[in-house]
Amino acid sequence: MYGPLKMFGGVAFRQGARASERVEMSMLAQHPGPVPSSQGPATVADAALAGSGGFDVLLVPGGRGTRREVANAAFIDQLGRQCAGARFVASVCTGSALLARAGVLDGRNATTNKRAFGWVASQGPAVNWIAEARWVEDGKFFTSSGVSAGMDMALGLIARLFGGPVGADIAQQAEYEWHADPAWDPFARLNGLVGR
Amino acid sequence: MYGPLKMFGGVAFRQGARASERVEMSMLAQHPGPVPSSQGPATVADAALAGSGGFDVLLVPGGRGTRREVANAAFIDQLGRQCAGARFVASVCTGSALLARAGVLDGRNATTNKRAFGWVASQGPAVNWIAEARWVEDGKFFTSSGVSAGMDMALGLIARLFGGPVGADIAQQAEYEWHADPAWDPFARLNGLVGR
Repeated sequence: MYGPLKMFGGVAFRQGARASERVEMSMLAQHPGPVPSSQGPATVADAALAGSGGFDVLLVPGGRGTRREVANAAFIDQLGRQCAGARFVASVCTGSALLARAGVLDGRNATTNKRAFGWVASQGPAVNWIAEARWVEDGKFFTSSGVSAGMDMALGLIARLFGGPVGADIAQQAEYEWHADPAWDPFARLNGLVGR
Repeated sequence: MYGPLKMFGGVAFRQGARASERVEMSMLAQHPGPVPSSQGPATVADAALAGSGGFDVLLVPGGRGTRREVANAAFIDQLGRQCAGARFVASVCTGSALLARAGVLDGRNATTNKRAFGWVASQGPAVNWIAEARWVEDGKFFTSSGVSAGMDMALGLIARLFGGPVGADIAQQAEYEWHADPAWDPFARLNGLVGR
């Protein structure tokens, strides 16, 4: 989820950024402290999810760990409560499985990684899963496909919060070719989720 | 640097990956422990740079911190010694400024982030800095432009180590549109480093 985070981190580091154009980031987990990743490097959770609140954007990562955490009832309950209070809720990759288990996507449009689509969809039978989408916006919920799609979604959310030129400037700063159209998705077809 | 790391992390997580197709990652710093980033979230250094060795790939991150660390003589000395022992050395964004200060790029072709080009170039007057390149390969040294270019370079290095199809498969898994041509670089022009 660091690719998407990097985009948010870029808001304040633009040349000529105004004082109102800034982002403060906190890393949250069920318990504070180092959190190992399935790929090796650990990150550090600054605070407990249950003791936090008042967020403009709650960004939910995906990855291998979601396969275990969908069955963590205490965590899913905390996540659902945080979603109620957040201005926007966004997920990357299989993070939408966690949101689905929290019930907050029921009756809404959402998407996820195209290589884990069947498993994620099974976590939320009442969600309208969209197979062909870079990311999906439904009210305050933004769900993205695989991790690179999360970078495009993050820029889309930054554009919503700070204006389109800010999103474009951050993309250029990171030398990222922004796919700004949420419907752009060659990967659904590559993974056989839509007709060839 | 997590976008590029994510690509290396994907090697072992491919469907049908062979036992020889795996990557073990360690995070190194001058001192082990949590390392805060300029953008907020901290990472955890598993070990000290000086006490490690025997790496296939030494990946040097960029970012704001490089502006300070180019003047950290002890760190630059350790970095130079590690470069001598590594099979490949790669840098992302302004990480090439650290390599330049260590002297290991002298007489070689290299590149860096297009928005920090002048500053980085000033750190290595004997380096042949290439303004228009997604990434540059010179012997065992791979230097990339901004952080997104680091993802393309990482896939290029993975292709060198494990074969082109492995790089392509990881890109698809991350739903990343791989720019596999190191010469592709619209950002040099956007930043006025080459003629319009």
